[in-house]
Amino acid sequence: MKSILLLGAGRSASSLIKYLLDYAPAEGWHITIGDIMVAHLQPLVAPLSFAKAILFDVHNEAQRAAEVSQADLVISLLPAVFHIEVARECLKQGKDLITASYVTPAFLALHQEAQQKNLTILMECGLDPGIDHMSAMAVIRRIRQAGGQLTSFKSYTGGLVAPEYDTNPWRYKFTWNPRNVVLAGQGTARYIRNGEYKYIPYQQLFRRTDELYVEGYGPFEGYANRDSLSYREPYGLLNIPTMLRGTLRRQGYCEAWDVFVQLGLTDDSYTLEDSEMMTYSSFVAAFLPPATTETQSIAGRLSLYLGIPQDGEVMQKLAWLDLFSEKSVALAGATPAQVLEKILKEKWTLAPGDKDMIVMQHLFAYELAGETREVTSTLVAMGDDEVHTAMAKTVGLPVAILAKLLLQGKITQRGVVIPIYPELYEPVLKELKEYGIDFIEKETVKTE
Amino acid sequence: MKSILLLGAGRSASSLIKYLLDYAPAEGWHITIGDIMVAHLQPLVAPLSFAKAILFDVHNEAQRAAEVSQADLVISLLPAVFHIEVARECLKQGKDLITASYVTPAFLALHQEAQQKNLTILMECGLDPGIDHMSAMAVIRRIRQAGGQLTSFKSYTGGLVAPEYDTNPWRYKFTWNPRNVVLAGQGTARYIRNGEYKYIPYQQLFRRTDELYVEGYGPFEGYANRDSLSYREPYGLLNIPTMLRGTLRRQGYCEAWDVFVQLGLTDDSYTLEDSEMMTYSSFVAAFLPPATTETQSIAGRLSLYLGIPQDGEVMQKLAWLDLFSEKSVALAGATPAQVLEKILKEKWTLAPGDKDMIVMQHLFAYELAGETREVTSTLVAMGDDEVHTAMAKTVGLPVAILAKLLLQGKITQRGVVIPIYPELYEPVLKELKEYGIDFIEKETVKTE
Repeated sequence: MKSILLLGAGRSASSLIKYLLDYAPAEGWHITIGDIMVAHLQPLVAPLSFAKAILFDVHNEAQRAAEVSQADLVISLLPAVFHIEVARECLKQGKDLITASYVTPAFLALHQEAQQKNLTILMECGLDPGIDHMSAMAVIRRIRQAGGQLTSFKSYTGGLVAPEYDTNPWRYKFTWNPRNVVLAGQGTARYIRNGEYKYIPYQQLFRRTDELYVEGYGPFEGYANRDSLSYREPYGLLNIPTMLRGTLRRQGYCEAWDVFVQLGLTDDSYTLEDSEMMTYSSFVAAFLPPATTETQSIAGRLSLYLGIPQDGEVMQKLAWLDLFSEKSVALAGATPAQVLEKILKEKWTLAPGDKDMIVMQHLFAYELAGETREVTSTLVAMGDDEVHTAMAKTVGLPVAILAKLLLQGKITQRGVVIPIYPELYEPVLKELKEYGIDFIEKETVKTE
Repeated sequence: MKSILLLGAGRSASSLIKYLLDYAPAEGWHITIGDIMVAHLQPLVAPLSFAKAILFDVHNEAQRAAEVSQADLVISLLPAVFHIEVARECLKQGKDLITASYVTPAFLALHQEAQQKNLTILMECGLDPGIDHMSAMAVIRRIRQAGGQLTSFKSYTGGLVAPEYDTNPWRYKFTWNPRNVVLAGQGTARYIRNGEYKYIPYQQLFRRTDELYVEGYGPFEGYANRDSLSYREPYGLLNIPTMLRGTLRRQGYCEAWDVFVQLGLTDDSYTLEDSEMMTYSSFVAAFLPPATTETQSIAGRLSLYLGIPQDGEVMQKLAWLDLFSEKSVALAGATPAQVLEKILKEKWTLAPGDKDMIVMQHLFAYELAGETREVTSTLVAMGDDEVHTAMAKTVGLPVAILAKLLLQGKITQRGVVIPIYPELYEPVLKELKEYGIDFIEKETVKTE
């Protein structure tokens, strides 16, 4: 009997929980699920002798220590800031840990101690980061083993809405934390292209997109993530001339989103005066230069200010959000980003029955025997329903599979580890196929 | 005999030091000047029995306490971050303090204790903040006493180069901390216009300038400062419909500076890869989209990218900085802002003999007896030479005069005080005239 302690049971944990409960009898697991809200879990676990849900407060040191002591393996899907305390407790008590979050400097500092104690802290095991590492490393390894020399690697991931439910002019709905979507891209994106470091500041980010195409799903666009450089080392691509990681959206999204950026509506650094008195249109007007005539509409002033065609698609997208309406903001002490998030939530929330879609595309170029070859590896994953969304499946299933492998003693890596090793990614990618999470590859020889 | 401890003897302290030394014999002052570098002061103070210069390290707690204990009044021109420790020491030992820096929340927290101890902490006593408060309050008080109702107050200040030495296409040279000039305006500018709060994000700030005109000196332009709202309360203008504080430059400066903003060259939040290997032109190229043909020049790519006329004044300004040259950056681990500062310093440093100029303009509108009246109050101050620059005089002299008034017992305000009271600003403005620091006022009745 092995005990698993899962911390964090929010929306993205659904598929992970289902997997653990499904495998528990055969694997001999006992599952404890801790969260600040567990009522929704009771119908699921109450009938099961091998599972329970408990109220768990990560700030309660005594509870944290007690629950970790009962576990053989801890999985944390808590908000990323809480992981480090959990990790320290695991280290203290000699327990393995898995999370889907980024390795931070605080975690790197635990690497050596974890190795010395023969423990594994598996991180970046979800979708992005997670499946992106695993699927990329599988291709990179194959190219290397064939003697190829990688010259370019670009990788884009997007959480979108499935085609059948892709019904609004933005071709986007929130399938993930709305706040993160509003704040996405702030700072300067850094990458390398043909051996030259490139920098794209926020005010240019949504104007400098790449075009992408997915067979059967049509065109997409990608904007660069903040940091495309730091994975060169773990991927073994320190001297690769071109490397870029990005976020994927449907065509036209970025041009319209750029309006918010240019106006300043995504700023989260200060609160608006009297935001509770604002309407959507007075919110927008606060960022516009004064009207030059009394008859100018807010939409007209905006299109003039930013040079956007008055009857074009961008203005249509904005109008569809009711951005120029007299709807009330009704948020006190709000930042511009918080007001924008509220406006977007009204229109971009998944409707009952809506299904989401994850799209990930890797583009590799390499030299082999005097030829330049290109590999495109693409994942399209659909949600099953509102609970088992594509996001929940792609984040939760790799974590769950790695948990199984770890408990089965099949992972030999120790310390703070990300899934860039064949012993991790090969079985995970293989099992993910059973859940329809599968990459389609296309290889071409580039002709001059 | 009264003892004055002056902390900080950098370039902007020259006129303050001269004033203190000039008045010391008649006023019966003993002057101690402390700085981390004092060699340049020795020729000045060595012959004087009533003055000395000492090596002073603000981080040395014992020295701080010892020197403050000797003083009747402390003046701090140290970098603003160091003031609070000095203030706490003054409070502890019951000494008055004067600085030219902004009142921060940490200082506000000392207000009550200072009042209880019958002490005065005079702040914002330089140019901006300082002379701007004093000169504006003098006009505001007069308008109020005449029964006028203020409807608009805009105020702009700029540190520029005197017309005779205004010889480069930017019409700008560094007369103040270059780093602050490079980082100026980051964040979102907030002001109020006709009763509506307005917000200008950094990426629009240098595009949304106001036109200004100074008799005898021609046209200028102004961009909004970050915070125009917080002075409504101390000025007694809580319900004023329009209030804006801004920074003043020569016409054309902002349009060209905006190129740096749009490219991302003013970002100070990350370091460039291999910055020590960069040339000026490769620095610029790192922020440009890839070339579309092999023959495109960096300048050509920039003008295409940002839509700037290739042979216009903006491109001329940029080329004049050697921005497209193969000059070496030669700075390791530098941020974009640090590289830009280096490039600008080469061209914008005052030449020997150059004189600087301070321009401040207040624009008031008020209603009186059914009429709308406008008052323009303008200061133009020239540097005497490279030591007694306009900046040093306008920052240092009001501090010095207020020090004299405080030691003469003529200031009754206690606590943390800014110079918005007639007992402070009237004698200061009067004495500043003797130094040629004088406002010219023009009042007009607005006709429909």
